[in-house]
Amino acid sequence: MRSLPLGFPKLLVSTMAAGDVSPYVNDGDVTIMYSVVDIAGLNDILRPILANAAGAAAGMAREYLRRSSVEDAPSTPAARQKRIAITMFGVTTPAVSHARALLEAYPCTPYTFHATGAGGRAMERLISEGFFDGVLDLTTTELADLHVGGMLSAGADRLTAASHKKIPQVVSLGALDMVNFGPKDSVPEKFKGRRLVEHNPSITLMRTSRDECVLIGQDIANKLKEADPLKTEIWIPQAGLSTLDVEGAPLRDQEADEALTQSIVDGLKGSSVRVVVRQNDINDHEFVADMVERLLLMMELAPEEQ
Amino acid sequence: MRSLPLGFPKLLVSTMAAGDVSPYVNDGDVTIMYSVVDIAGLNDILRPILANAAGAAAGMAREYLRRSSVEDAPSTPAARQKRIAITMFGVTTPAVSHARALLEAYPCTPYTFHATGAGGRAMERLISEGFFDGVLDLTTTELADLHVGGMLSAGADRLTAASHKKIPQVVSLGALDMVNFGPKDSVPEKFKGRRLVEHNPSITLMRTSRDECVLIGQDIANKLKEADPLKTEIWIPQAGLSTLDVEGAPLRDQEADEALTQSIVDGLKGSSVRVVVRQNDINDHEFVADMVERLLLMMELAPEEQ
Repeated sequence: MRSLPLGFPKLLVSTMAAGDVSPYVNDGDVTIMYSVVDIAGLNDILRPILANAAGAAAGMAREYLRRSSVEDAPSTPAARQKRIAITMFGVTTPAVSHARALLEAYPCTPYTFHATGAGGRAMERLISEGFFDGVLDLTTTELADLHVGGMLSAGADRLTAASHKKIPQVVSLGALDMVNFGPKDSVPEKFKGRRLVEHNPSITLMRTSRDECVLIGQDIANKLKEADPLKTEIWIPQAGLSTLDVEGAPLRDQEADEALTQSIVDGLKGSSVRVVVRQNDINDHEFVADMVERLLLMMELAPEEQ
Repeated sequence: MRSLPLGFPKLLVSTMAAGDVSPYVNDGDVTIMYSVVDIAGLNDILRPILANAAGAAAGMAREYLRRSSVEDAPSTPAARQKRIAITMFGVTTPAVSHARALLEAYPCTPYTFHATGAGGRAMERLISEGFFDGVLDLTTTELADLHVGGMLSAGADRLTAASHKKIPQVVSLGALDMVNFGPKDSVPEKFKGRRLVEHNPSITLMRTSRDECVLIGQDIANKLKEADPLKTEIWIPQAGLSTLDVEGAPLRDQEADEALTQSIVDGLKGSSVRVVVRQNDINDHEFVADMVERLLLMMELAPEEQ
């Protein structure tokens, strides 16, 4: 079911749909309905739920049919716009909002992916399929979960598709100060002595250590060093990787951040990929504006005439 | 949204719907659609997904309306049937299938709940709301996950609602030989030396220990000892608690099973609740048939005239 294209209606009714649905949804738009009781013999709990499922499937199919006939019409101006993928997390939202505002003046459409693992996987897949013309990969936090064992990893292929497809990318280090776990008592034993922040009852954030930052930096450098240096830049915000990593905030660890920077700089030695180190934090408007400008330049995008 | 009744159409579109959706679904029938990209500005990924959501909501609403008018019609014979909740797991499916087959001769409708945590919670809630007339609680495995820390706990209130509502219940010990974890490397450090069975790449089963079985047995006894003894029985299958706990199967641990039995028997001393100890395994047809017969008797159900 997951191999069907995005936008094609897909509905799954299952007794497993009340827990972790990532095996079913992965990076796609499979809609999930929890059947409450087992799908084994009809009864007056299951009957209305299956009737809702039939109604939903019919409604989506009807909508899909309508859309298909509309899309056969001559293409609208929007269809000729360039597509830009952007990665976001709660703690990098100010940066992404500012980037989106700046992009409004250009003939492009931004697509924001939430860095929850599924978000990064979906973006990498769509880049591989040729959907995007450029990437503002502000929030590479999923690499921390990959290397440290958090719950929002997007897998080992994160940060590879844009290089393979040779499309312009400006990469930054958003939220690499944190690894995501579930409720506080689900944090693995070995991490119990670490700096933890309870984001809410379901999410606990752990500060990445110096050593982990070295490892993550190496991975980033390895993935980018083979990319086209005319289309790839990495921007490093030394004053903080998220809203929680600025001066005085609970995850600030300058030493770990510097280790991350050094690891990337060392790893990219001998490559021509440009590394830009700035004294701003990731959500600083000037920092964001400069990254956006570089991406637009690499994409050869000029402002739209009004 | 979860407070709306079962069967009333509920649809949630979210970037969080590709991971653990239990905080949103809990024990209800909330349908979940993953939005792939953030819901922030329209683009040609989000537009068809939101259109599908609108189509699904409209389709479900249309179906709900149709159903409401049908249900205003005079009640059909099925509506006067007694409702029986049954708990099941893969490893107790043979028992439940046989129970369902036997119940076909009676004026009742069985509702099978998959013991995944959400299933047990949904059943307890519906019992509390007066939906059921009797419970064949064959598969109490969620209590193992509650006490040992597995991922399919139904919470501390599991096995309480039937006693409070004073409806007939026959309880057994299905799948209390196992605790459920995710992929093998997600099993907590402290359990690494334990007997583990990889059910599939996403599910790892751990045999409950002797000490854990004592704890689980105490909980069961505590919960049942205040129940109405005329409406409550517990049936113990000494030759195995699941298909994996029979002679020669990978989770067989006779000593732990006996500790569970002893703990229940000791805990119920002084109560009049009937404890039936048998030499069968839980999926044995004779064992199941005898439990079903007792439940029918307590529910005062006679076979339907043909």
